[in-house]
Amino acid sequence: MLRNDQLAEWDRDNFFHPSTHLAQFARGDLQNRVISGGEGLYIEDRDGNKTLDAFAGLYCVNIGYGRQEVADAIAAQAKELAYYHSYVGHGTEASITLAKMILDRAPTNMSKVYFGLSGSDANETNIKLVWYYNNVLDRPKKKKIISRWRGYHGSGLMTGSLTGLELFHNKFDLPLSQVVHTDAPYYFRRENVDQTEAEFVQQCVDSLDELIAREGADTIAAFIGEPVLGTGGIVPPPTGYWKAIQAVLKKHDILLIADEVVTGFGRLGSMFGSDHYDIEPDIITIAKGLTSAYAPLSGSIVSKKVWKILEEGTDKLGPIGHGWTYSAHPIGAAAGVANLKLIDEMNLVSNAREMGAYFNEGLKSALSDISIVGDVRGEGILSAIEFVKDRDDRTFFDPADKVGPQIATALLERSKVIGRAMPQGDILGFAPPLCMTKDEADIIIEAARDAIANVAEKIL
Amino acid sequence: MLRNDQLAEWDRDNFFHPSTHLAQFARGDLQNRVISGGEGLYIEDRDGNKTLDAFAGLYCVNIGYGRQEVADAIAAQAKELAYYHSYVGHGTEASITLAKMILDRAPTNMSKVYFGLSGSDANETNIKLVWYYNNVLDRPKKKKIISRWRGYHGSGLMTGSLTGLELFHNKFDLPLSQVVHTDAPYYFRRENVDQTEAEFVQQCVDSLDELIAREGADTIAAFIGEPVLGTGGIVPPPTGYWKAIQAVLKKHDILLIADEVVTGFGRLGSMFGSDHYDIEPDIITIAKGLTSAYAPLSGSIVSKKVWKILEEGTDKLGPIGHGWTYSAHPIGAAAGVANLKLIDEMNLVSNAREMGAYFNEGLKSALSDISIVGDVRGEGILSAIEFVKDRDDRTFFDPADKVGPQIATALLERSKVIGRAMPQGDILGFAPPLCMTKDEADIIIEAARDAIANVAEKIL
Repeated sequence: MLRNDQLAEWDRDNFFHPSTHLAQFARGDLQNRVISGGEGLYIEDRDGNKTLDAFAGLYCVNIGYGRQEVADAIAAQAKELAYYHSYVGHGTEASITLAKMILDRAPTNMSKVYFGLSGSDANETNIKLVWYYNNVLDRPKKKKIISRWRGYHGSGLMTGSLTGLELFHNKFDLPLSQVVHTDAPYYFRRENVDQTEAEFVQQCVDSLDELIAREGADTIAAFIGEPVLGTGGIVPPPTGYWKAIQAVLKKHDILLIADEVVTGFGRLGSMFGSDHYDIEPDIITIAKGLTSAYAPLSGSIVSKKVWKILEEGTDKLGPIGHGWTYSAHPIGAAAGVANLKLIDEMNLVSNAREMGAYFNEGLKSALSDISIVGDVRGEGILSAIEFVKDRDDRTFFDPADKVGPQIATALLERSKVIGRAMPQGDILGFAPPLCMTKDEADIIIEAARDAIANVAEKIL
Repeated sequence: MLRNDQLAEWDRDNFFHPSTHLAQFARGDLQNRVISGGEGLYIEDRDGNKTLDAFAGLYCVNIGYGRQEVADAIAAQAKELAYYHSYVGHGTEASITLAKMILDRAPTNMSKVYFGLSGSDANETNIKLVWYYNNVLDRPKKKKIISRWRGYHGSGLMTGSLTGLELFHNKFDLPLSQVVHTDAPYYFRRENVDQTEAEFVQQCVDSLDELIAREGADTIAAFIGEPVLGTGGIVPPPTGYWKAIQAVLKKHDILLIADEVVTGFGRLGSMFGSDHYDIEPDIITIAKGLTSAYAPLSGSIVSKKVWKILEEGTDKLGPIGHGWTYSAHPIGAAAGVANLKLIDEMNLVSNAREMGAYFNEGLKSALSDISIVGDVRGEGILSAIEFVKDRDDRTFFDPADKVGPQIATALLERSKVIGRAMPQGDILGFAPPLCMTKDEADIIIEAARDAIANVAEKIL
């Protein structure tokens, strides 16, 4: 155990963990956990504890843990060539092949993919491209970005500004000035509970229209949105939402960026969320499922319409002044190629559709009699349960009671199942690997019921 | 050759390369190059062409290409556990070990390391931390960042703003408003050629002092700088520069961020540039040499002084709202551990010091009689040659003549040696892997002499 003790001490003394209560961790009030392996839906720590990860890391390990096909591809690439840059037309067999595989799978109006490392840096790239696009088109004022409250688009300064969640703004002086927020398409949390879904969609549209009129369409470059709200609460859009929103954007010549970091590569039971909801984006953000997180890699897929202007831009201005040292990193590219092949070979997109439907139905029926369950929602293999104090009046708990986190903790402690307490609201999220089986779905459903019932009993 | 033809076509049809003339690439005026392997200082492409890479990728492959020790570590980690997140106190043996190894090597006033993917995202993290720091200290106005003209700190919106180079601002609406720039410590390009180095340093100090007075010290949070200017021209600071600048910053309680993405882990012949120049930073940015680019990984090392306030912040505000899905990615961490071990085992820091000195002296004496060579400068294994129209008058070439790029092209075509034409000015940069031998140094020196003499003959 000496080795383990040393690691815990090294960890506390040297490691600045993300999204962590730093003081609690430094004092030892929050324990570290050293993960050492994984297989399928399960992870294992150094002390031999196995846990069912029903959130696939941070909804990214789409193929499940421990896939040796991807590990082998990474190993082979590392041995052959771990790194060369992709500036000025350079590439590797893996990065070129992956670019083609992505475009083969992307919506048909897409043209090229720029590779980054994370969803955040891909959205950073997107904003740069959108600004450049409007400069080339000689529309220097058309620069603001509309994002939605509860959208999640990253944790940087601009991308954290696009994100519409308090936790990511609080004490970081965000959002920056060029970002304006519009309504979250969150029907369950509508102000007027008597509103129909269609009325609610119309309200979202009117609100967007008013925002654009207020700011001036000639000042607005793009609208960014996730096909399904992710970290903001896992909320599929109300029926007709995307069609109506797109009509507004087209009317005002505002580009649409579909942030598919969570939804890309099968999560909704379709290869892309854009196809799933008939969205026609101008740029698509990808990350997570692109490599199933086996190596860092993200991408910005740009449409034919945008690409044409970028080409014009470099003819006017010379090489584009944008690049990351690790753009199209060979290790990430090799992982991506192997991962996309595996998604096909294992039929994971259709499994996500079928198992997702089974799981969502299962959750609904298993939880219907628990009074604090206000909403059970999902699309594909992505689900959320939202808790309420009173189901009939739809009154919410005081955030200070931390009902969502209490339930996530109970789930882990009682059943060794990981679900995620979403950061704003009392919402338990599930996003298991796309390879989930019926038996595993049943285990998660039963564990969720047990944890929720247990906490409900304590607090009611 | 069918396979190769297909790759070229796939590349052109699907791949958006960074820092590339997109229209030329799309038209086929700019050829693609598919890199397939490397060993030591050499890379090899799919057509069997070998090239001596005297820029180590993008000055990042510190240990040289093809080191199987690092490839093996990546392979082992991929097989064991390719991914788990590091949120809320989670980690892996590799990420914890690497955190300790970094702090063991960093300046003694450093405390913890936050892991990211790229130098850009690490600087993004740094600005967020600096803003948070001043909010916790209840100094909400103290937020502006001073950067230097010709500094390079990334290619994002905020980090591209910190960067003080036209190429990265042009048509991207940068810099953003919270960034102000001060003088580049670039003695060779001083306006008044009669100025002594000491007088020039005093001018940099006065100029900084005036900027702070103009903006108000209570509005300025931090100063960011590379120990040696990198992409801005590879310019070691004039003697006494850092001591004098630091005195100004201390006087006004302005944090110092040392961007050691290029200089960290041996490039200057010291483990860190901060130690090399006796700089006492509050935050250090690391990337490139941390893994020698074998896998993407960056870091923000925060000092004890900053860490204490961050801890206070989470006690007041709860868990810090900052994290990347791929923070402390296991593959990057494993690569980092193996890379830092190899740097020690191969004595690369002392080799960089010795071979760097040999190389810089060799360049100076080999080029002394070529009239367009205005300056040969370097520190450790990082060197630049700056070209001038007239050495006596120190008149520069018209940028449109692209003398620097012409020489880099001649170097590659005549001798198959890669040097980099720096983006602003006629400057040829060298940053070979730290494992360079005397024989390899001699090859590069001879090739540089040949290329420069050849272009000089054409243009004079």
